[in-house]
Amino acid sequence: MNRQVFCLVTLAILLASLPVVQSRKILVFSVDGSHWVNMNILVEALHAKGHNITVMRMTNSWYIKEFSPHYTSITLKSAGGFDEDFFSVFAPKLLGILREGSIWAHLKVKIEMWQSFSGMVEVENKMIVNMFEDHQLMQSLKDAKYDMILTDPSMVAGVLLGHYLKLPIVYNARWTVYSEAHFAIAPSPLSYVPVPLLELSDRMSFLERVRNFVLYIIPEIQAAIMNSPSYDALSERFIGPGKSDLSLIQEADLWLHRTDFVFEYPRPTMPNIVYIGGFQCKPSKLLPQDLENFVQSSGDHGVIVMSLGTLIGQLPKDVAEAIAEAFAELPQKIIWRYKGKRPSALGNNTLVVDWMPQNDLLGHPKTRAFVAHGGTNGVQEAIYHGVPIIGFGLIFDQRDNLEKMQVKGAAKNVDFATMDKESFLKTVKEVLDDPSYRENMQRLSRLHKDVPVKPLDNAIFWIEFVMRHKGAAHLRTESYKMPWYSYHSVDVILVLISAVSLIILTIYAVIRYFCCKICMRKTKNKLR
Amino acid sequence: MNRQVFCLVTLAILLASLPVVQSRKILVFSVDGSHWVNMNILVEALHAKGHNITVMRMTNSWYIKEFSPHYTSITLKSAGGFDEDFFSVFAPKLLGILREGSIWAHLKVKIEMWQSFSGMVEVENKMIVNMFEDHQLMQSLKDAKYDMILTDPSMVAGVLLGHYLKLPIVYNARWTVYSEAHFAIAPSPLSYVPVPLLELSDRMSFLERVRNFVLYIIPEIQAAIMNSPSYDALSERFIGPGKSDLSLIQEADLWLHRTDFVFEYPRPTMPNIVYIGGFQCKPSKLLPQDLENFVQSSGDHGVIVMSLGTLIGQLPKDVAEAIAEAFAELPQKIIWRYKGKRPSALGNNTLVVDWMPQNDLLGHPKTRAFVAHGGTNGVQEAIYHGVPIIGFGLIFDQRDNLEKMQVKGAAKNVDFATMDKESFLKTVKEVLDDPSYRENMQRLSRLHKDVPVKPLDNAIFWIEFVMRHKGAAHLRTESYKMPWYSYHSVDVILVLISAVSLIILTIYAVIRYFCCKICMRKTKNKLR
Repeated sequence: MNRQVFCLVTLAILLASLPVVQSRKILVFSVDGSHWVNMNILVEALHAKGHNITVMRMTNSWYIKEFSPHYTSITLKSAGGFDEDFFSVFAPKLLGILREGSIWAHLKVKIEMWQSFSGMVEVENKMIVNMFEDHQLMQSLKDAKYDMILTDPSMVAGVLLGHYLKLPIVYNARWTVYSEAHFAIAPSPLSYVPVPLLELSDRMSFLERVRNFVLYIIPEIQAAIMNSPSYDALSERFIGPGKSDLSLIQEADLWLHRTDFVFEYPRPTMPNIVYIGGFQCKPSKLLPQDLENFVQSSGDHGVIVMSLGTLIGQLPKDVAEAIAEAFAELPQKIIWRYKGKRPSALGNNTLVVDWMPQNDLLGHPKTRAFVAHGGTNGVQEAIYHGVPIIGFGLIFDQRDNLEKMQVKGAAKNVDFATMDKESFLKTVKEVLDDPSYRENMQRLSRLHKDVPVKPLDNAIFWIEFVMRHKGAAHLRTESYKMPWYSYHSVDVILVLISAVSLIILTIYAVIRYFCCKICMRKTKNKLR
Repeated sequence: MNRQVFCLVTLAILLASLPVVQSRKILVFSVDGSHWVNMNILVEALHAKGHNITVMRMTNSWYIKEFSPHYTSITLKSAGGFDEDFFSVFAPKLLGILREGSIWAHLKVKIEMWQSFSGMVEVENKMIVNMFEDHQLMQSLKDAKYDMILTDPSMVAGVLLGHYLKLPIVYNARWTVYSEAHFAIAPSPLSYVPVPLLELSDRMSFLERVRNFVLYIIPEIQAAIMNSPSYDALSERFIGPGKSDLSLIQEADLWLHRTDFVFEYPRPTMPNIVYIGGFQCKPSKLLPQDLENFVQSSGDHGVIVMSLGTLIGQLPKDVAEAIAEAFAELPQKIIWRYKGKRPSALGNNTLVVDWMPQNDLLGHPKTRAFVAHGGTNGVQEAIYHGVPIIGFGLIFDQRDNLEKMQVKGAAKNVDFATMDKESFLKTVKEVLDDPSYRENMQRLSRLHKDVPVKPLDNAIFWIEFVMRHKGAAHLRTESYKMPWYSYHSVDVILVLISAVSLIILTIYAVIRYFCCKICMRKTKNKLR
């Protein structure tokens, strides 16, 4: 009996000595697809810390499941279909055009992307209107008294909802609806900050700087004309008059940014940006036995891992065949995640799989290289495990991400438009044979891992910080309240120029007046 | 015997399980005075981690002692006297002028400061030349093969030495020789980033923005004309041709910045700035018994602590008497660090001391308010312990620091020029009686302390990071290599304007040519 009492007292003391973590209520509004893969890691970590999480999803949600042990969900009626079915038609069409390789094809891709983006905006806007007009839903969200909203500003729904519910807002961000996240709140000197998607580095020649400048200005004007009005209308309607959508996006408390400066070129940043790049990475676990056997069978040659991410299920037939043929000529074993038709040229050394434990494979000591499409997640995992990349960039930011790795000497990229068996094989062999690729990637890995706080722990710390202090206003600058001309001091400069001009003109006028007087007097004197 | 073996094995296992910290060689070139008080904290912490530290000092060093258990020193021949003796004459003279309060007096102070600053630059430059021309010293510094240099860019000697020895450079910084440290490397939109020393906040009216803009431009031009040439000459002479002093300052690997965003207004920052504000703060220890007795004798009224820092030993007589009289009327007990003549009006409740354990006093539960001169160290300590401030700013950045605290509602400032017993007493009473001052400071204290890594630990982590990776080039932008017109894209804009103008002119010329032709043809036709 005494022993039981002792045990109970010890347990009570132990429990009392643990830091008291208050359970909080968090609303999550994520973007679907690979964005949710990331967001879900934060959701699971927050759930593990005892917080109650509610996730908003659509009736046609693709990755965001209705039932989860980590959250409860609220399902909104979808206003249209940007889901798995859409992408399974859209992606092959896009790849077909890309493969043409001409400037005309590039333009066609841009138009296709633009059209689908505009369609997406339209669908999202309809969904937002439906959501805000569902008064019962909005009242229940208000009544729930959440402590904060965690959202992704590459879609404005969560941002607007956060402001409507007057909640502290934390982003899990890499993009906003307007541009790369930094460009929305941090100064970005165009002389050394490359505009995203241009595949430029931070060391630009004069002509590259001209290109960077022009291709920053044009989309800015385009966005101001095309997107802002529709978003601003929603902001005005549901949040309040005089609130631009951009200023609402900028008003967030904290930006958890899904990169770091091992991945990203160094550039100005802000006090309320926390870099969590690679927060999804973790040490590799043991492989399933059959996969381990396959990997071990590679002997000293090791294995190559290939994956093209979640959106691209299959490749054009000639491309898939060229890759299979090239792989067949290598002494390495290859594990290729591919959902398309099995290429006929596939060698015995190549294992095609529907799904693979990518992190565990990249962390395997026998892995020599990673043929990657260049999605941020995959690149971060490659950095974490120090595996050099053969870049196979296709759409979105993929080629831009891979260009960063190539500039850092940790990747060699294949041009999708012109690639054939020979060029692909040559690139793979170069990355395998030249030790500098591996050395550079291992150096990046060491830098990435050498941080005082691990990225995921840092993310959770700052999310909880915002809840503890009901925001983080002391980290947010005053800039979001300013119109662009005040932000850039255009008004001040104009007034100063006017003032100086006025002074000069006055002095000139006075001098002229007296000169004339003197002249006239002299003339009069002469005439006398 | 068996037991001994067991103990030894256990010890060996324990030692082996400790992280291996490699002892490194660090060269330190600090600025004297309060800067050294800060730097010495880093030196002691680095010494405690097993690193070997060498500190450069002058023959007339004021705070930097020749012998220390934490470092070995190298003493340079001083080229002049900006030491304790200088300040004991300079400070009273300055206070005398400040007390006049007129605009003319303000200008006189500026001229005095400017003259003494120019004198300091001259003395420093002489010292630098002496140092670099001492070939034996330079050879021995080269031979010592340091792993890095830790220096303060408010003096260029350490910066130049670091580049000369080709060492990774880490700054313990708040200022550079040109301006506040941020202004040297981070974009500073003048619309919401107040120029230091103007006592402006980040919420400026239009006229304040004009003032901010003009008073940024003028010192920039002034510095470009007055200081840069002399520094640039040294850079060219000892480091290499084409190296401007500013670009050498910007080329450092890491900036440990002695503030944080609880103290500072939020503003753009850079990846290689690490905020270590308050790194000198620590929980208070017990007071010496006599001081504790004095503090306890205050009962529920509590105590007020007053200190004017290291540089200002005494105040003009009328000011000291006014303060003493005001204190005498309070029910609180006062501990006043003061080196001047004992004021005759001193009450029984006021204890004048030569030195005091400021940190332990500020952390004492009976401390109600802090009459502070506004040096960064003191303000950070007040934030740490959550003690509201009665601001008594005199010179340098003191009034600017205090203005920040006043804007945040954690301080009320006294105007030195116009202060008398009544106004001082009124201010002290307001801070004591209005609970908002204490509440606001306590809120700042909570925010300041709620960080994933303590500032001092963070500083040491990043210093060791730089040594582990032989620099931190991946955190430093490419901007330091650019001339200002490229950095601001002026060259790109001019070329674009020229190109657009050329196109418009060409189109105009072509249209004009054809119009003329058509006109001429018509005229001819008419004439026929």
